[in-house]
Amino acid sequence: MKRKINFYAGPSVIPVEVFETIQEELLDYQGSGLSLMETSHRSKDFDEVHNATISLIKELMGIPDNYKILFLGGGATMQFSMIPMNFLQGEKSCDFTLTGTWAKKAYVDAVKIGKVNVIYDGADTKYTTLPDVASLSVNSEASYLHITSNETIGGIQWKNWPTTSVPIICDMSSDILSRSVPIENFGLIYAGAQKNLGPSGVTVVIIRDDMLEQCPDSLPAYMNYQTHAAKNSLYNTPPVFPIYAMRLVLERMKKLGGLPAMAELNQQKANLIYEAIEKSGGYYRSPVDQNFRSDMNVVFRISDSDLEPKFIKEATLHGMVGLKGHRSVGGCRASIYNSMTYEGVKELVGFMNDFSQKN
Amino acid sequence: MKRKINFYAGPSVIPVEVFETIQEELLDYQGSGLSLMETSHRSKDFDEVHNATISLIKELMGIPDNYKILFLGGGATMQFSMIPMNFLQGEKSCDFTLTGTWAKKAYVDAVKIGKVNVIYDGADTKYTTLPDVASLSVNSEASYLHITSNETIGGIQWKNWPTTSVPIICDMSSDILSRSVPIENFGLIYAGAQKNLGPSGVTVVIIRDDMLEQCPDSLPAYMNYQTHAAKNSLYNTPPVFPIYAMRLVLERMKKLGGLPAMAELNQQKANLIYEAIEKSGGYYRSPVDQNFRSDMNVVFRISDSDLEPKFIKEATLHGMVGLKGHRSVGGCRASIYNSMTYEGVKELVGFMNDFSQKN
Repeated sequence: MKRKINFYAGPSVIPVEVFETIQEELLDYQGSGLSLMETSHRSKDFDEVHNATISLIKELMGIPDNYKILFLGGGATMQFSMIPMNFLQGEKSCDFTLTGTWAKKAYVDAVKIGKVNVIYDGADTKYTTLPDVASLSVNSEASYLHITSNETIGGIQWKNWPTTSVPIICDMSSDILSRSVPIENFGLIYAGAQKNLGPSGVTVVIIRDDMLEQCPDSLPAYMNYQTHAAKNSLYNTPPVFPIYAMRLVLERMKKLGGLPAMAELNQQKANLIYEAIEKSGGYYRSPVDQNFRSDMNVVFRISDSDLEPKFIKEATLHGMVGLKGHRSVGGCRASIYNSMTYEGVKELVGFMNDFSQKN
Repeated sequence: MKRKINFYAGPSVIPVEVFETIQEELLDYQGSGLSLMETSHRSKDFDEVHNATISLIKELMGIPDNYKILFLGGGATMQFSMIPMNFLQGEKSCDFTLTGTWAKKAYVDAVKIGKVNVIYDGADTKYTTLPDVASLSVNSEASYLHITSNETIGGIQWKNWPTTSVPIICDMSSDILSRSVPIENFGLIYAGAQKNLGPSGVTVVIIRDDMLEQCPDSLPAYMNYQTHAAKNSLYNTPPVFPIYAMRLVLERMKKLGGLPAMAELNQQKANLIYEAIEKSGGYYRSPVDQNFRSDMNVVFRISDSDLEPKFIKEATLHGMVGLKGHRSVGGCRASIYNSMTYEGVKELVGFMNDFSQKN
C-alpha cells in the first residue's frame, strides 16, 4: 500500500508514526486491557493523557502561567459563538479585521451578539493582502480585537502582530504551532485541531486569566469559559480520542525539535513551492500579496486556467490529493501543515515543473 | 492480552470487532491510501460514512421523514445550552421533570435563559423513583417538556412516556438505541455517543421539522439547529473519527438484529443482575424503586457498606473495571450498555455470588 501525499486543507495529513502508535495501542492501551476510547475520562490513564497534552502545548508554545489551556467541542465555528457571548454582551464593543472567509464568519456571529467595529476590510483586494500592522487603529474602548492569523481559503497569513493594549483574540486554526508567536500579545487564541494538531473533534482554547474573569455568570455552563477552566476541561466528557491523537502529534513535534524546527521546516516547504511559482515564467502565479503569502496554504493559479482541472487530475494519478482550491475561489491550493514532509512538497514541485513543460 | 470486562459509565465498552475494523483501516481507509481521519470532510469517502451513519440511526430507530439527524460537538452538556437558546427565548416557558443529576444540570442551564416550571421533583425520594406518567400535569402553553430518559448516576429509567401535546425534549444519552421508543412523541432527542453509540466526541440530535422552524435567526451560527440541518451537519468540520466509529457500532447492532434484539439482550443482562440482588437475601440491595430500575446502569449497595471498597477492588483483580458508584452517591454501579456482552454480565453475577459467600 502506497500512502497518498495529502494536501487536504483539513482534516489533513497526520504523521504515519502517529497512526502506527494508535494502531498498536487500540485494543489494549498500555497494558490496561482496554482501549483508551472506552476508558472513563475520570481514569488515571486518561488523566495522564489529558494533562500531558496540556503540558505539551504549554511547553511547545512557551505559554506563561497566567493562561489556561482548554479542550472544547464544536470546532472553531463554535468559538465564533462563544467569544462574543463571553466578551461582547451588553454595552461592550469589539474590533474586527475582515481578512477573508473565516474572519467574516466570525464577524457575522459577533454582530448577532453586540457592537462590532470593522477596522480593516480586504474586500476591495478580494482578500489577497493584509494591512500593515502599524496602520491599524484599534478602538481603545474595544473589549477585544479579533484577527484570523491565517486565512485557509485565501492563502494569506499575518507576518507581524498588531500592537495594542486591547486584548487580541486570534483564530489560529490553520497555523497554530507552525511558528513562534508572542503569546503575551493575545487574550485568547483558539484553533480547531484538524489542520496542525491532529484529527477533528477537539478545539484548543488558550485563554488569559484576565479574560476568564470577564465571562458572565448569566451564560449556561458549556458556553462559559470559566466552567471549563475551573474543571481543567473535564466538566463534561471530553472528546477522548481526538485529545489522545493530538498528544501523539505534539510528542512527535517535540522530538523533531519543537517549534523552532517546525517553523524552519514550514518555511522551507513554503519557499519551495513559491519559488517554483516565481521561476515558472508566469505559467503559475500566486494571487496573493507576496508580503503575506501563507506558509500553510499555498494558493496558486495556472495562467491558462483551463488547465487547472487537468493539473488536479494528473496530480491525483501521481498520488497527490487535495490540490483543488476551495470552491469559493477556484484554482489550486496546496495545504502544507506541520505534518506534511519536505519530501512530499518536493514531489509536488517536481510534478508542477513536469506539468508546465508538458502542457 | 486479556481484555477487561468494562462497566464504565462512559466512555464505555465498545465491541472488539469495531476496534479490529478501525485497526485494519487506520492507515489506508478502504484502499484510499489515507486514513479517514486525515481525509477532507468534503470527500466522497467521508460523505459515504456520514450519510450511512445517519441512515443507520434512522433505520434502527424507525425515525419518520419529518425528523433530521444532526451530529454536533460539545456533548449532551452543550445541548443543555442549545435547547433553551433555541426554544426558550423571550416570553416562552418550558416544563421540567427533575429526576436526578443530569435532569438538574439541564434545568440549571434552562433557568439561565427563560421561564422553567418544575412539574416533578424527585428530591424527597433522593431521586430513586420516577413519576407515574398519568400523574404528570404538563402546562399546555409550555414550549417543551424536558425529560431525562435514564439517569446514569441514580440508575433510574422511564418505562413509559408522558402523553402530552407539548413537544417532549429528551436527553437519551445513556439509553439511546437500547430499546424501542415512540419517536413521534418527541420533538427533540439528544444523546452523547460515549455510552451506547461509540467513543466520545459526537452528540446525536434527532429533531422534528416543526421544532427546527422555531429556531431564532438571532442565534450565532453554531448555536442554531437550522444551521446544521440545512447543511446535513457539514456546516463546519464534524468530528470525523467519532462519527466513523459510531457507524461501525451501529452496523454491528444491525447485524445482531437491530433494536428488538438489542432490547431483549439488554433486558436479559439487567434481569441477571437484579435477580442476583433479590436472591442475595439482603446482602446486596438496590436503592431504586423496582418499577423504574435502569437496564443500563444497575446501581446497588452491599448492606454492610464497609465491604464495598473490597468488592470493587476484588472485582478489579477479576478483570472487571468501572464498578464504583458515582462519587456523588457512592456504592456500586454496573453500566451495561448495548456493547456489554451477556457473558460479561454473567461473570459479574458469578463474582457477586462468590463475594457474598466469602464475605
